[in-house]
Amino acid sequence: MTSLAKPPGPAELTQERAKASFAVRNMTHYLDGGPKQTAVRERIMLQLERDPVWQVADHHDLTLQEIRERSMAKVRRAAHHVGNESMGLFKLRMELISVLDPGTWTRIGVHYGLFFGALRGGATPEQFSYWAQKGAVTLNGMVGCFAMTEIGHGSNVAGLETTATYDQASDEFVIHTPTLTATKWWIGGAAQTATHSVVFAQMIINGKNYGVKNFIVQLRDTTTFENLPGIVIGDIGAKMGRHGTDNGYIQFTHVRIPRSHMLMKHTKVNRRGEVKEPPLQQLTYGALISGRVAMVVDSGAIAKKALTIAIRYAAIRRQFGAKDGEPETKILDYAIHQYRLMPLLAQAFAMHFTGIEVNRMYEEMMDSMETLQPGDKRLGEVLEKLKEMHGTSAGLKAFSTWSTLNIIDQCRQACGGHGYSAYTGLASLYADFAVHCTWEGDNTILSLQGGRYLVGCYREAKAGKKQAGGVAYLNNLESLVSKQCSAKSISEISRLEVIEEAFWLVSARVVKKAGEDFENGIKKGLKEDESYEACSQSRLFATKIHSVGYLFHRFKGALERAPADLKPILEKLCMLYGFYAIAENTGPFLQYGYFTSEQIDWIRESVNALCLAVRENAIPLTDSFNLSDFMLNSPFGRADGDIYTAYFAAVQKAHKPGAIPTYFNKEISPLLHRKMEVEEVLELDEEDEE
Amino acid sequence: MTSLAKPPGPAELTQERAKASFAVRNMTHYLDGGPKQTAVRERIMLQLERDPVWQVADHHDLTLQEIRERSMAKVRRAAHHVGNESMGLFKLRMELISVLDPGTWTRIGVHYGLFFGALRGGATPEQFSYWAQKGAVTLNGMVGCFAMTEIGHGSNVAGLETTATYDQASDEFVIHTPTLTATKWWIGGAAQTATHSVVFAQMIINGKNYGVKNFIVQLRDTTTFENLPGIVIGDIGAKMGRHGTDNGYIQFTHVRIPRSHMLMKHTKVNRRGEVKEPPLQQLTYGALISGRVAMVVDSGAIAKKALTIAIRYAAIRRQFGAKDGEPETKILDYAIHQYRLMPLLAQAFAMHFTGIEVNRMYEEMMDSMETLQPGDKRLGEVLEKLKEMHGTSAGLKAFSTWSTLNIIDQCRQACGGHGYSAYTGLASLYADFAVHCTWEGDNTILSLQGGRYLVGCYREAKAGKKQAGGVAYLNNLESLVSKQCSAKSISEISRLEVIEEAFWLVSARVVKKAGEDFENGIKKGLKEDESYEACSQSRLFATKIHSVGYLFHRFKGALERAPADLKPILEKLCMLYGFYAIAENTGPFLQYGYFTSEQIDWIRESVNALCLAVRENAIPLTDSFNLSDFMLNSPFGRADGDIYTAYFAAVQKAHKPGAIPTYFNKEISPLLHRKMEVEEVLELDEEDEE
Repeated sequence: MTSLAKPPGPAELTQERAKASFAVRNMTHYLDGGPKQTAVRERIMLQLERDPVWQVADHHDLTLQEIRERSMAKVRRAAHHVGNESMGLFKLRMELISVLDPGTWTRIGVHYGLFFGALRGGATPEQFSYWAQKGAVTLNGMVGCFAMTEIGHGSNVAGLETTATYDQASDEFVIHTPTLTATKWWIGGAAQTATHSVVFAQMIINGKNYGVKNFIVQLRDTTTFENLPGIVIGDIGAKMGRHGTDNGYIQFTHVRIPRSHMLMKHTKVNRRGEVKEPPLQQLTYGALISGRVAMVVDSGAIAKKALTIAIRYAAIRRQFGAKDGEPETKILDYAIHQYRLMPLLAQAFAMHFTGIEVNRMYEEMMDSMETLQPGDKRLGEVLEKLKEMHGTSAGLKAFSTWSTLNIIDQCRQACGGHGYSAYTGLASLYADFAVHCTWEGDNTILSLQGGRYLVGCYREAKAGKKQAGGVAYLNNLESLVSKQCSAKSISEISRLEVIEEAFWLVSARVVKKAGEDFENGIKKGLKEDESYEACSQSRLFATKIHSVGYLFHRFKGALERAPADLKPILEKLCMLYGFYAIAENTGPFLQYGYFTSEQIDWIRESVNALCLAVRENAIPLTDSFNLSDFMLNSPFGRADGDIYTAYFAAVQKAHKPGAIPTYFNKEISPLLHRKMEVEEVLELDEEDEE
Repeated sequence: MTSLAKPPGPAELTQERAKASFAVRNMTHYLDGGPKQTAVRERIMLQLERDPVWQVADHHDLTLQEIRERSMAKVRRAAHHVGNESMGLFKLRMELISVLDPGTWTRIGVHYGLFFGALRGGATPEQFSYWAQKGAVTLNGMVGCFAMTEIGHGSNVAGLETTATYDQASDEFVIHTPTLTATKWWIGGAAQTATHSVVFAQMIINGKNYGVKNFIVQLRDTTTFENLPGIVIGDIGAKMGRHGTDNGYIQFTHVRIPRSHMLMKHTKVNRRGEVKEPPLQQLTYGALISGRVAMVVDSGAIAKKALTIAIRYAAIRRQFGAKDGEPETKILDYAIHQYRLMPLLAQAFAMHFTGIEVNRMYEEMMDSMETLQPGDKRLGEVLEKLKEMHGTSAGLKAFSTWSTLNIIDQCRQACGGHGYSAYTGLASLYADFAVHCTWEGDNTILSLQGGRYLVGCYREAKAGKKQAGGVAYLNNLESLVSKQCSAKSISEISRLEVIEEAFWLVSARVVKKAGEDFENGIKKGLKEDESYEACSQSRLFATKIHSVGYLFHRFKGALERAPADLKPILEKLCMLYGFYAIAENTGPFLQYGYFTSEQIDWIRESVNALCLAVRENAIPLTDSFNLSDFMLNSPFGRADGDIYTAYFAAVQKAHKPGAIPTYFNKEISPLLHRKMEVEEVLELDEEDEE
């Protein structure tokens, strides 16, 4: 409709950008870790944008099989890069691919994260180079998948039913699926991609079960792609999201593999079937944590994408409130819309900085672990770090993924009716992201593990062992728990130190409550596991409050390290995150007496004021995330603000106007032109009634 | 895998059913409104189940166009029933269709709810019979849609841009889309179903704008289905859910219709272009409320579907906790899993009873309105009822649809990994249901309207006007707000009367807070609308707490009226709903001093105990919802418990095992068998370096 008045949009964003109180480019550099990192990210984004293989604009109108075919082409591209760039660069590329196309990220990740990760963590150097030569690095010759989950077992890996029985005569393991519930299920890449698999199976030697170990099993002929004899692979079909990844099921019927295909870096089995277990089982857990860390990072990245879309739209959409002759009010100017989105924007920053911090901690830990020598004096220290990393990452993975799932849905709802259109991109973002709350540890179970870790720390602290890191607030518990906020006015309360102390105190109290509930169970004669089970609810609650506070502390740390020109806006965001978190969870802050009823009212007022203050920079803040239009893949997130034109064009491109439905003659015409039989009912000549 | 051990399932549910402490059939009868109603529902469910047209088992593997074709066939079936059964029966049929196939429910509802509703509410008797003769009742000759929303306007109907300009010379209205943002958008049924539309447009006569009125416009030739001249209709394509409904856009370019196609029951325009406005504008709002009431009812029905699936699965799935030789623990036996699902089960009952009550109130109100005569003395009373219905239904629609959306997602997550499979049915249930939070009034805006109503009631009560119905707690505010719970122990606190008083008090306090915030704005010199805007957050919070309490009170009422044998279990559910709602929102109950910190701990303990008690009847309670396997359409919800067999069979039926991807030669083989060029890099003979 070129003859018509231009729809609103571009001018609005220009005005918004003029209001920026900070230099957007500086913020981008700080978020990315420096100008050099920003340049690298932009280089990768440009490469993706120009490559025909990576186009996703028409994804919403493709069939499942079309999406899968496209994603396979992208897997090939990724394999090319693995051979030609550093590990660090590839990791960054993957981070960006996750924002652009989560389904393909998973399909690539199945090989390079899961299969290859299992090799790196579980293969001897000899085994590693054997599989590398077969193509495990370049995919030239093989693609791997990761057959852990079974239809009847997900969380409880120790309870898997698949067996690997050693046949000493032939020096082979026999892999077998003994029941329907033992069927390998949800195996990403199994349906249409993988030629090989890591298989988790109970290792049985001479009738003795040594528990679950990893075996490499070839699934398909690499030339014909047919299932090998004894192996049945099927497609598990339609899923909620991540359509680019082909999940499948696998059943093994007495499939024989050489003994050397068992991964033997830790547990070793020799020709005579003798088993040598590793001295420190815990050291094998490190790899498990990497997935969790990646999801904490991904949570921040995806939250930024969703928020950019919803906030840019809110700065353009106008509705209600018009006086005669004046334009209607921007929805971003409504107090309630600010309350819906600005705290979530603050939360995205908190998650971003937490992701960086947790990633750093993880890299450090892995470095110490990989350089550990037999008899190393650092062993105790490394195990301590591993414990902290394990406990902390469990709660953070759960809390971050739940938060981002909520952010996506809030953003979608904040786009009103258009949020329900596939082209807005938020519906598929939700569907794609949702699985983060389940895989690599169901969030509820991880939260309980996190709570168990916190109860452990509480008990150690009580016994006099000093706690470090994120749980240091458990030292000197007694003096902490009696503190009360002394602020006498809204201006006195509006300080980061107040929020910090509030979270220390309340985290300490909820952890203490969980710890006491646990100890009461023990006193009543419950066994340890039973007592943990009995205090599940207080453990879960402790993890939640601890994690919210953890994010706040990470954000405050990043603020302190920030360049001076960015501090004012970051301080507002940090304070908004903290106060909003309190306002949404006032219960424990009142129950444990840190805040009074009046102070809570001040905090609510403060949240409203901070929402307004952050709103003034809302568009510059989304700009600082530096996601290109291509990466956002949503007309509603367009940087130039021309959303209505772009949205209309996208819909027109996908569907020719005036098309007559293919089923018109079959289903519509017969309805419109039918003979109304009801008018011709045969009237009986009822003699009796006369 | 017939040769293998039978997977767990059937025996589990048999054991669960043996534990029932109440007669399941009696509960079904009470929920349905008597044995006769149950029989009618079962008759309709059987009819749907046996009809090939209504099959939905393979829906997850169909393309958008296939789903739409199927849903059109169902529209034809529905048209048949309209001609052959009572309105009450058809309404019940539609309730069940919504549970089975929400997309088709909407496609039928677009004509029979929206288009036909607009005719009933807006046409004169003469106009009504004209359109009835054209096929508006039977669809024999026409199908209608409802063109209200535009791409630039949804919530603010008064701001629509489409114009209907009267041309006195020809006695016609000219319908026109003046800008891109005026394009009619999201119009259900427009893309592939409708021949006619109700069009909302600004009525302009002699240069004066009389505001938005309704016009009937023919869109397509009923024989060829081509767009009529001046009309462009396009498909808006892929959506988050409700794929059975074909949403489209419409642009009118100077389209002429006879003046008589304007609906004139209320506003009338004569041949000379003179306009007669109706005396009471409010009486036209009644129809708006029907959609909200239907969604409150639908929220309860869909919650029951989701809960039946998740709870039956939880009674079969076992994970962790095994001692040697013993089976693992049912996930329903974990305290945390009970805490995840049992309160939601209680909430579904609360929503069910609230739906019945609100529906009854609505029918009564419509009866009084439709029998109202000019000069009727009941007018004041009717307008009062309309105001209450309007305010109450706004908050309840928002709260119920948000609650059910949460229930579906919690149920999906509670199914762990399998919740992410399309075949579980919860992912599509979520996607289909989500739009309820947006259409017929965005939930946030409706909550604010509900809050505005509450503030109004508060101010009336303060001025001495007695409040009735759901806001009667606002009478005698002063004596109420100082009350405190006097319970001295967990057993003293565990009474329905405690919860009832707690909600009265806290609802009164949060409404009072919103009212005071509003009045403070006025004192500061804000205009009424500005002051309402300034207290948005407290209004929203007031609506939330009021609505939670409202559901509790409806549930308590239904419990009091229940047959004696059902009272014990209903009392547990009602108490669980109330205490859980408090435990999840402890903030205001502490802030306003009704409960002490210690009492809150008792309430949490009580919730855990009630979860366990309800868990004992969990399967019988899902049985009492009486949804057949066909209606549930999920192997995980099967009444016989044989979920693993059914799930595996469904996946195998949809996808032949061992299939080779169609793109193997194009995308996979070239990856596996490529020449590694990196090995052949040309080494330059660099003279300089020698």
